[in-house]
Amino acid sequence: MRCMNFTRAAAYLGCAVALLLAGCAPGRSNLSARSAPFHNIVDAQAKAWNRGDIGGFMQYYWKSDLLTFSSDGHTRRGWAETKARYEQRYPTPERMGHLEFSDLEVQMLAKDAALVLGRWHLTREPDSVGGNFSLVFERIDGQWTIIHDHTSATPTKDAPSSDEP
Amino acid sequence: MRCMNFTRAAAYLGCAVALLLAGCAPGRSNLSARSAPFHNIVDAQAKAWNRGDIGGFMQYYWKSDLLTFSSDGHTRRGWAETKARYEQRYPTPERMGHLEFSDLEVQMLAKDAALVLGRWHLTREPDSVGGNFSLVFERIDGQWTIIHDHTSATPTKDAPSSDEP
Repeated sequence: MRCMNFTRAAAYLGCAVALLLAGCAPGRSNLSARSAPFHNIVDAQAKAWNRGDIGGFMQYYWKSDLLTFSSDGHTRRGWAETKARYEQRYPTPERMGHLEFSDLEVQMLAKDAALVLGRWHLTREPDSVGGNFSLVFERIDGQWTIIHDHTSATPTKDAPSSDEP
Repeated sequence: MRCMNFTRAAAYLGCAVALLLAGCAPGRSNLSARSAPFHNIVDAQAKAWNRGDIGGFMQYYWKSDLLTFSSDGHTRRGWAETKARYEQRYPTPERMGHLEFSDLEVQMLAKDAALVLGRWHLTREPDSVGGNFSLVFERIDGQWTIIHDHTSATPTKDAPSSDEP
């Protein structure tokens, strides 16, 4: 009897696990389906950056004067200005280094709006840098488009942490 | 004749201006109506801060472990942790100083989601500081609630600009 009970218990447990997996799976796959476009975009951005293609990197940003890009306590405006600033700050492959994005977190705000958090790391000599970013996406003409970027760098010895509320 | 023409032209001009104002006014008032809740929230936050009430300042943030607060290249999580960090960094009225928010820009992302950009300035001795912020709001249970904050400080002599993509 104890043996049968154990077998039955194991069977019940197996069923429960299977049901649990079946119940969870759709949620999980929906989540990945929702996140996939954003993973694809930041992957494509990193690839463009790492072949020295700032234009390719920029193509996922809103091509509008209303694009906003915040960093270092300032907000810059417009696609052309943002691109020009990148070109000025990263004039050579050595300065561009090797860019990696990681730890993406996608939060849907509406059917056509999302908040994406993540980390960035630029490996280069002599000053590797990194930090985090918040991207606000809107689906414009069917394409997920970055309408706002707020990027911060992790403090370094040369640029220690600022105080902020 | 010239005099009559001038009078008529002036009347036409008057009508045109009146029509233009009438046409623009509803748009403007809708815009202010949409922006008003966010202005009210940051005003209330600054007032709470300036009476030393960090709890009052924090009440507009999502009371959830899912709240995210990014600054200095890090993302902190949760309402309780965010509040504890404020209390630790601003232990006295002198350290809290006088907080002002300005230059608010409200961008509706959906009926129940908004992006709000703005500037902050903390007047205190000896180290006044300031910068900008990006707030993502969601309307939760009918209340506009900050679900994500990314805040940056303007570089100072002690904390110069970091390099970031």
